[in-house]
Amino acid sequence: MAKLTHLDDKGAARMVDVGAKAVTARTALAEGYIRMNAKALKALTDGTHPKGDAIAAARIAGIMAAKKTGELIPLCHPLALESVTVDFTTESDGIRVRSEASLTGKTGVEMEAMTATSMALLTLYDMGKSLDKGMRIEAIRLLEKTGGKSGTWRAAD
Amino acid sequence: MAKLTHLDDKGAARMVDVGAKAVTARTALAEGYIRMNAKALKALTDGTHPKGDAIAAARIAGIMAAKKTGELIPLCHPLALESVTVDFTTESDGIRVRSEASLTGKTGVEMEAMTATSMALLTLYDMGKSLDKGMRIEAIRLLEKTGGKSGTWRAAD
Amino acid sequence: MAKLTHLDDKGAARMVDVGAKAVTARTALAEGYIRMNAKALKALTDGTHPKGDAIAAARIAGIMAAKKTGELIPLCHPLALESVTVDFTTESDGIRVRSEASLTGKTGVEMEAMTATSMALLTLYDMGKSLDKGMRIEAIRLLEKTGGKSGTWRAAD
Amino acid sequence: MAKLTHLDDKGAARMVDVGAKAVTARTALAEGYIRMNAKALKALTDGTHPKGDAIAAARIAGIMAAKKTGELIPLCHPLALESVTVDFTTESDGIRVRSEASLTGKTGVEMEAMTATSMALLTLYDMGKSLDKGMRIEAIRLLEKTGGKSGTWRAAD
Amino acid sequence: MAKLTHLDDKGAARMVDVGAKAVTARTALAEGYIRMNAKALKALTDGTHPKGDAIAAARIAGIMAAKKTGELIPLCHPLALESVTVDFTTESDGIRVRSEASLTGKTGVEMEAMTATSMALLTLYDMGKSLDKGMRIEAIRLLEKTGGKSGTWRAAD
Amino acid sequence: MAKLTHLDDKGAARMVDVGAKAVTARTALAEGYIRMNAKALKALTDGTHPKGDAIAAARIAGIMAAKKTGELIPLCHPLALESVTVDFTTESDGIRVRSEASLTGKTGVEMEAMTATSMALLTLYDMGKSLDKGMRIEAIRLLEKTGGKSGTWRAAD
Repeated sequence: MAKLTHLDDKGAARMVDVGAKAVTARTALAEGYIRMNAKALKALTDGTHPKGDAIAAARIAGIMAAKKTGELIPLCHPLALESVTVDFTTESDGIRVRSEASLTGKTGVEMEAMTATSMALLTLYDMGKSLDKGMRIEAIRLLEKTGGKSGTWRAAD
Repeated sequence: MAKLTHLDDKGAARMVDVGAKAVTARTALAEGYIRMNAKALKALTDGTHPKGDAIAAARIAGIMAAKKTGELIPLCHPLALESVTVDFTTESDGIRVRSEASLTGKTGVEMEAMTATSMALLTLYDMGKSLDKGMRIEAIRLLEKTGGKSGTWRAAD
Repeated sequence: MAKLTHLDDKGAARMVDVGAKAVTARTALAEGYIRMNAKALKALTDGTHPKGDAIAAARIAGIMAAKKTGELIPLCHPLALESVTVDFTTESDGIRVRSEASLTGKTGVEMEAMTATSMALLTLYDMGKSLDKGMRIEAIRLLEKTGGKSGTWRAAD
Repeated sequence: MAKLTHLDDKGAARMVDVGAKAVTARTALAEGYIRMNAKALKALTDGTHPKGDAIAAARIAGIMAAKKTGELIPLCHPLALESVTVDFTTESDGIRVRSEASLTGKTGVEMEAMTATSMALLTLYDMGKSLDKGMRIEAIRLLEKTGGKSGTWRAAD
Repeated sequence: MAKLTHLDDKGAARMVDVGAKAVTARTALAEGYIRMNAKALKALTDGTHPKGDAIAAARIAGIMAAKKTGELIPLCHPLALESVTVDFTTESDGIRVRSEASLTGKTGVEMEAMTATSMALLTLYDMGKSLDKGMRIEAIRLLEKTGGKSGTWRAAD
Repeated sequence: MAKLTHLDDKGAARMVDVGAKAVTARTALAEGYIRMNAKALKALTDGTHPKGDAIAAARIAGIMAAKKTGELIPLCHPLALESVTVDFTTESDGIRVRSEASLTGKTGVEMEAMTATSMALLTLYDMGKSLDKGMRIEAIRLLEKTGGKSGTWRAAD
């Protein structure tokens, strides 16, 4: 059966040894979406663009969470991230978040991009929840990663 | 236009004053789902039940993240949570996570339940990503909240 | 000689016992200033008003730091803050920051307002340092506190 | 068989619900010892008394760790500690650490006193390890707790 | 007299400069033991083996604490750990914890292994304390370190 | 107009990419001052020298805050600091703090030295505030930086 790299032969969790891995340039891009009612969307965006003041808090939350990934995800290695960006686009019934992280190092930054995206979306939920408690966070996923032994990977669609 | 309670009249973010709110018993229940391929699902679960060793890490990550909510979400109040549970159920193409939090206090614990759910799902992603990079985190949402001035709220479906 | 309440009779640091103190409504207001050259001031403000995008980061940094005060200042009690605001005004050669915090509890929130102010100012320094490394952070001080046994205190000028 | 309160009936970890517990005054006192060679002991103490400069760092580490207990121990509740003290006494072949914590609340502060003690001892180890890598941390234990439903408990010896 | 490397000539604490040290592969192995009564031991272990659910929480606590070492021990350098494992074995009257950490870097990882061990033991204490408040944490010590200028060191017994 | 490197072309905050920057030895020295009345100064210092017990807490707070800079300042990169020192000198009406940090890396350590200084000063404020609420923190500024593409910079006066 396929094995989980984060568990040893007896099934015990561990932070896997990356000491022998090559130092390469690595990037990861993740996205997610928060669906909401018209009232919340109008309050969070200024017509067709995300509204600066509410979005800025979500962006900062995403960037700061990326730096905390190793503290939040139990088996993630602590990483010295070299860049993080978090972007927002308004769609017809919600807001899309895309986060990109990069690093020159021994492990990938997929979890950092995923964590930044999740925390930015949660902050939007927190902002809008007084207007729409039924908002849904959807389709958080990796879009692309580059670098490392496995090289480039892109989501199928 | 509907206003965001987290922004003041000039649009500046703030941690809103809850000093005058009543202390009541409050609970929140949130859920989310992570969709994955058969190989990852088989590795993360033991037939039809989530596998203890991998799941335990996700559960602890969720509980610990609930306690960090006020540190992660910029405008959330720091709260003295009185209980947190995070549960996992295996479905045909993924794992469902439900988190419940409670508190006797002046503000609700919706964000704590949402954050616990998100972090447990991200930890599952981290566990399984060597077998399926295309996993998707879906439908993170509030199912129910009780307590406070607005009383009980339940998701429509 | 006057004694420091944070040290015991032998001079050892301690987190002093506030168990017997009364629970009262408490507020604190602190301010500080960052002086900078015209180039940095123009980049950080939009004519006469602080510029939204740069300032939002400083505001969020201040609010989040207020919540971390008990983690940063060794002998401060951990507090469940009920509100935090951080405001910015442009002056002729810099930006003034005012932070207010409040709580219903056994200890004052002076350090929370001071910490929010300091971190907002440091974030402005970080933002502007590529344009003016010689910026100075000045006059961080308490303006007012209310509540507690000692009641209201206001700075002389 | 005796059950662990931190696990539910299926064995899943949880942060147990303390919402219905009574708010009472609670204290806990813990101690531990670090045994070391004469060279390290002489460097860490000034004759018969712990040396101020090295000990101060260990004391602060203990106090700050007490405040982080809920962040370090997965199933501990986050608590608003009302006092923490950490004391050091020199013995013939090492240094004894005693930590006391107190709180008016729904859960006990045993883990806070134990964590403060452990971190103060680890800081002493860190201080002395260039002189004696073989130092041993010994007998970390609870000496006494008061308050709560179970009332006062004292170690047998 | 032997000097503490963490204090300067005037006795002031500092984070010593490791900038000129060589980057080498470094490992550290530490252990500790928690003694408990038969009732607690039976609840925490399944006959002769540590019980998965309770132990998983302690293991995750140890791994996560290793990553926080630089935040907990005042004069420790922040390190980018490359691996951490925490293992448990049942003995006649308690549970033994062994933690190993590794890194390619300029400073050793002894404190990371010691901190992981201490936090795993404290989490076991927290788990079992409702059944035995008199549990004792014993003999936390370094077993081996490799790498760096001083090379390999092993405990005498 | 001069641009802020922390904002992109649309004014969105980001953690700028330092991946292509050269790894060089970098240092930064910052200072600040806290002005206080004679009673507070006498309590915090022993005649003409800062008093060990109160100062030690401020020093540790500064060193620990330097390690947290990337967690406190939203757009700062997380850094693996190689050294931090925080020093105190008594002047006629207050205490001066100087902090120095160093690193071999891709980004400068100015913010680390500034943050250490600010937190040491805030801790002194916390220590002395029962004797003088009107204390002022003044002139926090960078004195010198070395390393990196821009090389050495020194404050004009």
